[in-house]
Amino acid sequence: MLSVICRSALPKYGRSWLSAQVAVRTMSSSEGPSPPFTTLAVSRPAEAVTHVQLHRPKKLNAMNKAFWREMVECFNEISEDQDCRVVVVSGAGKMFTAGIDLMDMAGDMLQPEGDDAARVAWNVRKLVAKYQETFSVIEKCPKPVLVAVHGACIGGGVDLITACDIRLCTQDAWFQVKEVDIGLAADVGTLQRLPKVIGSRSLVNELALTARKMYADEAKSSGLVSRVFPDKDAMMAGALEMAGEIAARSPVAVQGTKLNLIYSRDHSVAEGLDYMATWNMSMLQTQDVMKSAQAVMEKKSLKETLFSKL
Amino acid sequence: MLSVICRSALPKYGRSWLSAQVAVRTMSSSEGPSPPFTTLAVSRPAEAVTHVQLHRPKKLNAMNKAFWREMVECFNEISEDQDCRVVVVSGAGKMFTAGIDLMDMAGDMLQPEGDDAARVAWNVRKLVAKYQETFSVIEKCPKPVLVAVHGACIGGGVDLITACDIRLCTQDAWFQVKEVDIGLAADVGTLQRLPKVIGSRSLVNELALTARKMYADEAKSSGLVSRVFPDKDAMMAGALEMAGEIAARSPVAVQGTKLNLIYSRDHSVAEGLDYMATWNMSMLQTQDVMKSAQAVMEKKSLKETLFSKL
Amino acid sequence: MLSVICRSALPKYGRSWLSAQVAVRTMSSSEGPSPPFTTLAVSRPAEAVTHVQLHRPKKLNAMNKAFWREMVECFNEISEDQDCRVVVVSGAGKMFTAGIDLMDMAGDMLQPEGDDAARVAWNVRKLVAKYQETFSVIEKCPKPVLVAVHGACIGGGVDLITACDIRLCTQDAWFQVKEVDIGLAADVGTLQRLPKVIGSRSLVNELALTARKMYADEAKSSGLVSRVFPDKDAMMAGALEMAGEIAARSPVAVQGTKLNLIYSRDHSVAEGLDYMATWNMSMLQTQDVMKSAQAVMEKKSLKETLFSKL
Amino acid sequence: MLSVICRSALPKYGRSWLSAQVAVRTMSSSEGPSPPFTTLAVSRPAEAVTHVQLHRPKKLNAMNKAFWREMVECFNEISEDQDCRVVVVSGAGKMFTAGIDLMDMAGDMLQPEGDDAARVAWNVRKLVAKYQETFSVIEKCPKPVLVAVHGACIGGGVDLITACDIRLCTQDAWFQVKEVDIGLAADVGTLQRLPKVIGSRSLVNELALTARKMYADEAKSSGLVSRVFPDKDAMMAGALEMAGEIAARSPVAVQGTKLNLIYSRDHSVAEGLDYMATWNMSMLQTQDVMKSAQAVMEKKSLKETLFSKL
Amino acid sequence: MLSVICRSALPKYGRSWLSAQVAVRTMSSSEGPSPPFTTLAVSRPAEAVTHVQLHRPKKLNAMNKAFWREMVECFNEISEDQDCRVVVVSGAGKMFTAGIDLMDMAGDMLQPEGDDAARVAWNVRKLVAKYQETFSVIEKCPKPVLVAVHGACIGGGVDLITACDIRLCTQDAWFQVKEVDIGLAADVGTLQRLPKVIGSRSLVNELALTARKMYADEAKSSGLVSRVFPDKDAMMAGALEMAGEIAARSPVAVQGTKLNLIYSRDHSVAEGLDYMATWNMSMLQTQDVMKSAQAVMEKKSLKETLFSKL
Amino acid sequence: MLSVICRSALPKYGRSWLSAQVAVRTMSSSEGPSPPFTTLAVSRPAEAVTHVQLHRPKKLNAMNKAFWREMVECFNEISEDQDCRVVVVSGAGKMFTAGIDLMDMAGDMLQPEGDDAARVAWNVRKLVAKYQETFSVIEKCPKPVLVAVHGACIGGGVDLITACDIRLCTQDAWFQVKEVDIGLAADVGTLQRLPKVIGSRSLVNELALTARKMYADEAKSSGLVSRVFPDKDAMMAGALEMAGEIAARSPVAVQGTKLNLIYSRDHSVAEGLDYMATWNMSMLQTQDVMKSAQAVMEKKSLKETLFSKL
Repeated sequence: MLSVICRSALPKYGRSWLSAQVAVRTMSSSEGPSPPFTTLAVSRPAEAVTHVQLHRPKKLNAMNKAFWREMVECFNEISEDQDCRVVVVSGAGKMFTAGIDLMDMAGDMLQPEGDDAARVAWNVRKLVAKYQETFSVIEKCPKPVLVAVHGACIGGGVDLITACDIRLCTQDAWFQVKEVDIGLAADVGTLQRLPKVIGSRSLVNELALTARKMYADEAKSSGLVSRVFPDKDAMMAGALEMAGEIAARSPVAVQGTKLNLIYSRDHSVAEGLDYMATWNMSMLQTQDVMKSAQAVMEKKSLKETLFSKL
Repeated sequence: MLSVICRSALPKYGRSWLSAQVAVRTMSSSEGPSPPFTTLAVSRPAEAVTHVQLHRPKKLNAMNKAFWREMVECFNEISEDQDCRVVVVSGAGKMFTAGIDLMDMAGDMLQPEGDDAARVAWNVRKLVAKYQETFSVIEKCPKPVLVAVHGACIGGGVDLITACDIRLCTQDAWFQVKEVDIGLAADVGTLQRLPKVIGSRSLVNELALTARKMYADEAKSSGLVSRVFPDKDAMMAGALEMAGEIAARSPVAVQGTKLNLIYSRDHSVAEGLDYMATWNMSMLQTQDVMKSAQAVMEKKSLKETLFSKL
Repeated sequence: MLSVICRSALPKYGRSWLSAQVAVRTMSSSEGPSPPFTTLAVSRPAEAVTHVQLHRPKKLNAMNKAFWREMVECFNEISEDQDCRVVVVSGAGKMFTAGIDLMDMAGDMLQPEGDDAARVAWNVRKLVAKYQETFSVIEKCPKPVLVAVHGACIGGGVDLITACDIRLCTQDAWFQVKEVDIGLAADVGTLQRLPKVIGSRSLVNELALTARKMYADEAKSSGLVSRVFPDKDAMMAGALEMAGEIAARSPVAVQGTKLNLIYSRDHSVAEGLDYMATWNMSMLQTQDVMKSAQAVMEKKSLKETLFSKL
Repeated sequence: MLSVICRSALPKYGRSWLSAQVAVRTMSSSEGPSPPFTTLAVSRPAEAVTHVQLHRPKKLNAMNKAFWREMVECFNEISEDQDCRVVVVSGAGKMFTAGIDLMDMAGDMLQPEGDDAARVAWNVRKLVAKYQETFSVIEKCPKPVLVAVHGACIGGGVDLITACDIRLCTQDAWFQVKEVDIGLAADVGTLQRLPKVIGSRSLVNELALTARKMYADEAKSSGLVSRVFPDKDAMMAGALEMAGEIAARSPVAVQGTKLNLIYSRDHSVAEGLDYMATWNMSMLQTQDVMKSAQAVMEKKSLKETLFSKL
Repeated sequence: MLSVICRSALPKYGRSWLSAQVAVRTMSSSEGPSPPFTTLAVSRPAEAVTHVQLHRPKKLNAMNKAFWREMVECFNEISEDQDCRVVVVSGAGKMFTAGIDLMDMAGDMLQPEGDDAARVAWNVRKLVAKYQETFSVIEKCPKPVLVAVHGACIGGGVDLITACDIRLCTQDAWFQVKEVDIGLAADVGTLQRLPKVIGSRSLVNELALTARKMYADEAKSSGLVSRVFPDKDAMMAGALEMAGEIAARSPVAVQGTKLNLIYSRDHSVAEGLDYMATWNMSMLQTQDVMKSAQAVMEKKSLKETLFSKL
Repeated sequence: MLSVICRSALPKYGRSWLSAQVAVRTMSSSEGPSPPFTTLAVSRPAEAVTHVQLHRPKKLNAMNKAFWREMVECFNEISEDQDCRVVVVSGAGKMFTAGIDLMDMAGDMLQPEGDDAARVAWNVRKLVAKYQETFSVIEKCPKPVLVAVHGACIGGGVDLITACDIRLCTQDAWFQVKEVDIGLAADVGTLQRLPKVIGSRSLVNELALTARKMYADEAKSSGLVSRVFPDKDAMMAGALEMAGEIAARSPVAVQGTKLNLIYSRDHSVAEGLDYMATWNMSMLQTQDVMKSAQAVMEKKSLKETLFSKL
């Protein structure tokens, strides 16, 4: 299904690697990460769909220092890229990610600097806040982010996927909130987002306090993922199809939906309704309503409807 | 099980259609909506149980302009009606509802008035707020509201049912968050309430961003509905039985329970406990506690216990 | 599996009954509650694990006046006990608990004092607040609390278990939110915590408004419990094993995890992340990170790692 | 300064009494309240300015049952009246208001109905909520409300003025939080709004707990009022002038300012900024910015600038 | 004005020192603190008025370890004491208080225990939370607390007075937020309450960041205190008179007022109104409304009205 | 008092202009802004004190496009600059600032781009959010920021100063919330922060709705500024002295104080206390407490105490 056109065919990178006018139809990049990135491979497998791959397969996509910085740059660009309407995140190689790269990060984590405990603390706080931002950018990105997990998703991987909007996995996937095993309370998102992502608090607590593995079936029945696929190929095809469905719809509607769903999570229903009404003061003044309504009445596919960029 | 006594047997309507002293035992109204309503048929199928039917079967119960206004009037009256202790909502005809009546509503939605974009926005906001109120009245009504869904429940239908307290459906029911298909972020409750109604955030996002259908089995496993019945007759019988169980209990206990469950949804546990204690300052001073306790000790059914009206 | 060493072998009680230096390896106490308690039997079945048994088996562990007070004392001591890292709660005899002991409590509940309705209300509020504290102490205790339910868990029992961190049950267990049957809105935690503990709001409302029983399978599929065991022996063995896993990990990591999971429940994601970063300013300065990381690298079990007391 | 044209010259009342096209230039209505009102006299003393007078001078503008209902009707109409951009509230006769009309209200307040204390409580809550709404409508009205106080402002009068946006008074004015004198905690706004209206918490508490009078000078220095005038004529002239200044400005800017100031009071700065940005998505798309900017550059008065109605 | 009857005339202490039936008419206690307290002298200078004196005059009422514990015990007892309706706090000797007793507290503050920085932190948090409680009990006490300050009020003294309801001072009083001078951010209430107690944020920040002294005049104009008296005798007479005014009013009204004023501080206006209505469901059912209304109509002093105890 | 050493003596700029090791003792920069800035002049008039001058005197320090960007860069650098402990902001030339530079900004504000009203709105929101950040960086900067205002402070100037911690002004200063005059609701901070900065809500509303000028005396009595100086020289000397006082104190204490004061503003007292205790878990482990306590006991000035950098 996916015709592979090598990512390096893109004419230029840096500031504009995402806004390439030629649609790059690939879900995988065989040679390695996309410059200027060293840990991420970014491609455009279908129109308006951006694919971000964790791409250190020999290191099991472990999250090293570069990764934390590159994710922020990557998603900041995606947020601005008018040619992208939806994002798919996956992992290259044998698994989604082995989590934090302890060897690479040890200096930061185990030997924070400072003249006394308070000054060490001050630096620790800045560091943690910076790492939190790495996954919060996914949430702040107005385009929906699908994540497709195969094999292991450990530690920082769980922090990452809970910040995404839609979670898919393969039958062989497993998830592990690992932090308690290395003497930490998970501090870059899992403890904050996991309880708002799945419905069983007893399960959340068990996972976070015992660091036990959770396999695909329990991930599905508990609601962590909304679909399980037999293998990675099927999952990537499914993810791309779902991404295509989203990309075909009005970006005004889609991005407003994501943003208000996140707002609702953190507010009362009454606050959410008020914000929604204020949001739609302008957003209902879009041509997209008329275009979409017309497509519905004419029973045409939305994929044939042309919406302005956003 | 349900002896059908035509709704029109009610002696008078308007202000007092709900407080009829004769118990009207019907779950369906064959001839049409209950004046002064044109889109709703209201009846009393069992003591203390009010049945509100969406009743434009030829139009698939599509929500037209009249509907939005009538729901508010209807539930405001129910809130005041001391003879009603529980409400059942269902749809007449082939399905629960096809959602918004685009033809009837198009003027409001597609051509809002105003001299400039800000003034159009001002009018849009008032309109959206008014429509939001249509479903918020269900939540504000202190009596529990059960909703029984058969066939399709589309768009505005999902907004409606998420504002109800208990959701039941038939095996052939399906649900669709439709708004994104017509260029809108759902703004009358779905985006605010659905994530607080079911436990899988990935599923909520998928439904809202792709507008895909969800069938009864997934609705049950995800927790959107708490019971699935083989067909509509079985469901209505089940709904009436459950309504009867609730109606038999102390209205002080039942309505206090609904109100505090909603309060808890929007507050921290500590805030919820404080409000509950303040609420029960007066509510524990009811005779109903003594009456109920006595029934328990004498192993009598609560259906034989007479509670004062509330 | 559990060698029974009688609780009375403990050298002294009162202030120090929990910090006994000899490890008491028992999950049950045959003779009765642990003085000074009359409703609770407290033991140490494994290192760093405290077992709290509801222990009025002849009265089906019904919650009498003494119980409400003793729970507070018991968990306050556990909170301070540096030798305890995790708690297991269970019920002695035929069932977990029949709930409130109506006979014993009737005076308080049915005949509150006061010269007028306002003064009665004032006393009611103090009483309710005091009872709420009985279960809130479980939540305030920084050590994780597992609860293992067999047979019936009725009324106050549901209030109790929703305040625990991890819920397990036997195949024959059932749960009942009973309060509405005796004319009350549940006011010591169920209405506040149950909706944040399981993902289906429709189910929560149904349980609270109809007082119907929920059996083990539905408790599992709805997420109320995260594991179901065939019988009580298997469950207690499973609970002890899980408790052992938690007790083996860094108490700085474990208790910080519990505390931040509870904080997150009641705050937005952004607030939760900020608090977490502030919390870890000091907590990441623990030796436990180094010790744990070393164990991971040396592939040693954490059970062989010695962490300082907390 | 104020040419008195009798309010009765208005061609018709009811639905349209506010939208009279002829500007009614009067600040006082000598004959009595404006039908259909019995306690309020409504007039249009200047273009786009609505004057609402508490008008039961023989009863010292005491708040009787009719008053609580009429205020809601009056401000609901004002909210919809596109010819009104600002409101001035004052009292007819010797003083602003003596507060609640104990004689007229005694039935409601002293003998609430209900079969037991819980059912009485239920009715009390509905009553209090209804009375709270009487002053909350002032806050919900998007047009700024100035209140001009002369003589006494007692009890319910303080609840009323704290819901207004700008407070002015005469040198002989005094204010009294009276409720504690009749055995009540003030429940229709004073305890909620007064602490957010003036800066000294010690003073707020003193006033509310002792019911002592506060005179104009302390009202000014504490910030309750922002201006003091020597007498009522000067105050009404000043109020009309200030109202004229506000009425001359863009209604999009003015009403957005009021609404966001109230939003900010009840939210964190970050929440307020987010809401403001969302609000201005549409509101900055008004022609009024261009018109206003042009007037500024041409150094013309805004009174000569014609803004579309809102 | 104040007839001095020595506090030691009270028949018994301990559990019942507050509920003495003979009215103790004294504002000062010449010999020293009231057993079992070593830092506080408690007396009853007028009916229903409790006077709590900081009483280590030779140590300038510096806050030593005993003080932090005794304040909690003292206010817990006052909260339960039905004979007390209002509290006055003042300082014995030359000044109100010199703040924390650095010598006595140094061990706790400068040498917290723990095997690593995280475990030290754990103990620090418990300590700070315990000290915070010392002043929070004033706020939790439902009876209004007036504080009368003469001379210096330094460091912990400011934490204390901001937790009181009404602040009075002498002309020679001065206030100093001292913590920044000893390397601390004030953590037992000043930084949390001072900004909600006075209206000028610039002043709050200046005081907290520079530790400069603020004298009586600025304390009055900024709203920290609501009254300034020429000397201590005049202030104590004024405080007693104000306390008498409060004590004469319905305790249902007075304590409900305090509680709702504090609730309002921490909630939006809408939340505050909702809580108030729920609170008054029961509280308006008091006889005190009728008794108070009757006194008003008969123009009798409330001091002659007998209200039941609360 | 201020020896003028020209800012250009600093060896290098850009990344390191702030961390110059030679103390630059100047409060004014005669030649113009500090490269790379074109609208700001940055200097170090005393040890650990950074002076940021709005520096477009010929344009009355009007805020042009460059200004909005440079403020963010400038304060981001200051946040990281360990040699800076306190900041003073002032305006060069005749006045503090004339506010927004309408000519330079007109394109952005009056002609936002987009294919329909929704897409214009999307761009407007990003723009407003970016401008909000310009002043929020002042608040996020952990070092206290004093602002010294002379002459006019108009429009955006008020947004700026309300984000500062301490406000000072000259006798000839005046303030004007100008936005309503150009058809806008002030959206970069004034409506959100002004009501939390001064105590009189009536005054806030009057200023924001009428755009009238407020002079120094009212600014002082209302609490907007905490000190008024006769002229600019006196004010700058006073500002520098106050900055020196703050710079001499422990940076751990000072910056923790600022951060917690801001946290408290946006949270309940209970939340603020909890955060404070968590913050001080690490911060009380600083050497600065011991150093400061020692200085106090030895009655030495803190200016002689050497604290480690933060």
